[in-house]
Amino acid sequence: MRITLDTVEVPEPGEGELLVQVEAAPVNPSDLGLLLGPADMDTLKAGGTDGAPVLTAQVPEKILPALSGRIGKSMPVGNEGAGVVIAAGAGQEEMVGKRVAMIGRAMYADFRLMRPESCIVLPEGASPADGAALFVNPLTALGFVETMKAEGHKAMVHVPAASNLGQMLVKICQADGIGLVNIVRSEEQVDLLRGLGARHVVNSSADSFRADLTEAIAATGATLAFDAIGGGETTSTILNAMEAVAARDMDEYSRYGSDVPKQVYIYGSLSTEPTVLRRGFGFTWNVGGWLLFNFLRGAEPAVAQRMRERVAAEMTTTFASHYTATISLEEALSPQIAAAYQKKATGEKYLIRP
Amino acid sequence: MRITLDTVEVPEPGEGELLVQVEAAPVNPSDLGLLLGPADMDTLKAGGTDGAPVLTAQVPEKILPALSGRIGKSMPVGNEGAGVVIAAGAGQEEMVGKRVAMIGRAMYADFRLMRPESCIVLPEGASPADGAALFVNPLTALGFVETMKAEGHKAMVHVPAASNLGQMLVKICQADGIGLVNIVRSEEQVDLLRGLGARHVVNSSADSFRADLTEAIAATGATLAFDAIGGGETTSTILNAMEAVAARDMDEYSRYGSDVPKQVYIYGSLSTEPTVLRRGFGFTWNVGGWLLFNFLRGAEPAVAQRMRERVAAEMTTTFASHYTATISLEEALSPQIAAAYQKKATGEKYLIRP
Repeated sequence: MRITLDTVEVPEPGEGELLVQVEAAPVNPSDLGLLLGPADMDTLKAGGTDGAPVLTAQVPEKILPALSGRIGKSMPVGNEGAGVVIAAGAGQEEMVGKRVAMIGRAMYADFRLMRPESCIVLPEGASPADGAALFVNPLTALGFVETMKAEGHKAMVHVPAASNLGQMLVKICQADGIGLVNIVRSEEQVDLLRGLGARHVVNSSADSFRADLTEAIAATGATLAFDAIGGGETTSTILNAMEAVAARDMDEYSRYGSDVPKQVYIYGSLSTEPTVLRRGFGFTWNVGGWLLFNFLRGAEPAVAQRMRERVAAEMTTTFASHYTATISLEEALSPQIAAAYQKKATGEKYLIRP
Repeated sequence: MRITLDTVEVPEPGEGELLVQVEAAPVNPSDLGLLLGPADMDTLKAGGTDGAPVLTAQVPEKILPALSGRIGKSMPVGNEGAGVVIAAGAGQEEMVGKRVAMIGRAMYADFRLMRPESCIVLPEGASPADGAALFVNPLTALGFVETMKAEGHKAMVHVPAASNLGQMLVKICQADGIGLVNIVRSEEQVDLLRGLGARHVVNSSADSFRADLTEAIAATGATLAFDAIGGGETTSTILNAMEAVAARDMDEYSRYGSDVPKQVYIYGSLSTEPTVLRRGFGFTWNVGGWLLFNFLRGAEPAVAQRMRERVAAEMTTTFASHYTATISLEEALSPQIAAAYQKKATGEKYLIRP
């Protein structure tokens, strides 16, 4: 596979459109899937010239069939970002000069043509970094809460909870009085979330993990979980813990398990291993994919509007992202830097400043 | 674990109740789960006396924790059966002498106290064997169709399709013009279902299985599946085949997969191995448990009534069960016979005649 910076013509905004000069765009796990997901990271190689760098990598042969729709196609990258409106089509003239947060594709670019409904106008004084990641993580976290309410659950489990998104969810649930069980993988992460005020934090590296998880689920009444790990047994462990709690209230044994509905949504693939379900949790359960775009498409307009307003209002508090490195578009194509941001270490987050 | 025949007092039917003399009850996989599910079948041992036989078996120590709710409790067995009403409480006197099909528990018995709503009155001339299995398999098969309609799918996949239930589903779908993809595991079973008129039958033992499954899904438009195997990769294989078909209609590659909803319900545990999901099927999917009792509880009364009427009307055609052996209650406690019916071989089915 080849990653390139291509020179393209700056488009003219048509009626109702905005031309935005991109100032900042985060490197989210969802971007990395498209950027480097299938690459064998041991084969990264720099090429091209200073002004037009090229990054290449081998893709393991056995996964090529799954990528047949992608081979031979150039795909722009970058799901969200922030920038300044530098030109506007008819009807949007008053937007020129404003700084906006954006969602779409192709944000790893100097310029981007946008529809206003895919932008949030940032308040006076907001920096590009403030606005760069106001869509994917904030709307996902708020989407979890809306899903919970819509499906009649009263509390939820989240993993991995120390992520940028996880920290936002801790703050939201605390503000809204929602029970949240946070699964992290180290004592440092336990301390981090407790420092934010999280009440239920369980460490998957601890010997007592399953027992701790079960007690936290019992304490909150969580029957819903969001899992971005996806592969391995995390989803299964959560369902079995939920069922163990539900079984406490059963008058008699049933080999079909409890009749308490248990739902886990897999919303990411930090592990691309198969999902392994050890079905000790009866027959009243559901595991499914959860995708922000699907959720927003199905959401009531009033719900979507409420979510956007909250994101803008809490930009520098609940929804503040912390970046550990800022890189240019050219640097994003350096093998060393690509290897670093591809690691997806919790707490590490890269910001691209074109 | 101990399986015994206990002598209990024959109860008096109260107001609105029926006392039924049980004449026949099938050995369904759902019964076997409770009867012998956790037993180490190599440790079966006969005991007791001729009139009061006892069957014992060891339960592997590692699964004891999962059974904590069951240990020390005597549990009656037998989900369904047929018999003759021999006495009735006030208001149900006209039922005496009628033969009925029944659903409940504890059908492996000589007598059973029933509520009329858990019975279907059988037509004149129906034998005990005709009525013994009119609830679980027929209502499950019809429940699949109702679930398909309620969730907006137009065709479905079923596995293992050569089962008694699978054969009923073939007949229902043929009569109703519903697309059905049948997964079986041998050429004999392919022939069996083709003999019933099934159009799409794929053999999971064939080298071309995945390709055959994909083409059958493409031909029918199936986006829903019912899987009674549960363990292993069957569910995963079906979802990946559905996604491969959906991807054919995609204009451009998306690493989130297609936006075609794909649903698999696990309604049995013929394999108690973990369910392994190789998530090559994007994020628009769902896997969940499906249980007849949950379905009936959530169904509209008119839907449930329609299902029961169809079962009675098509008792000897669509919903006829075929038994390969008839045994007494005492014989059900023989180690040799227990080992035989526990095998759950497709096409083999035992009927208990108390």
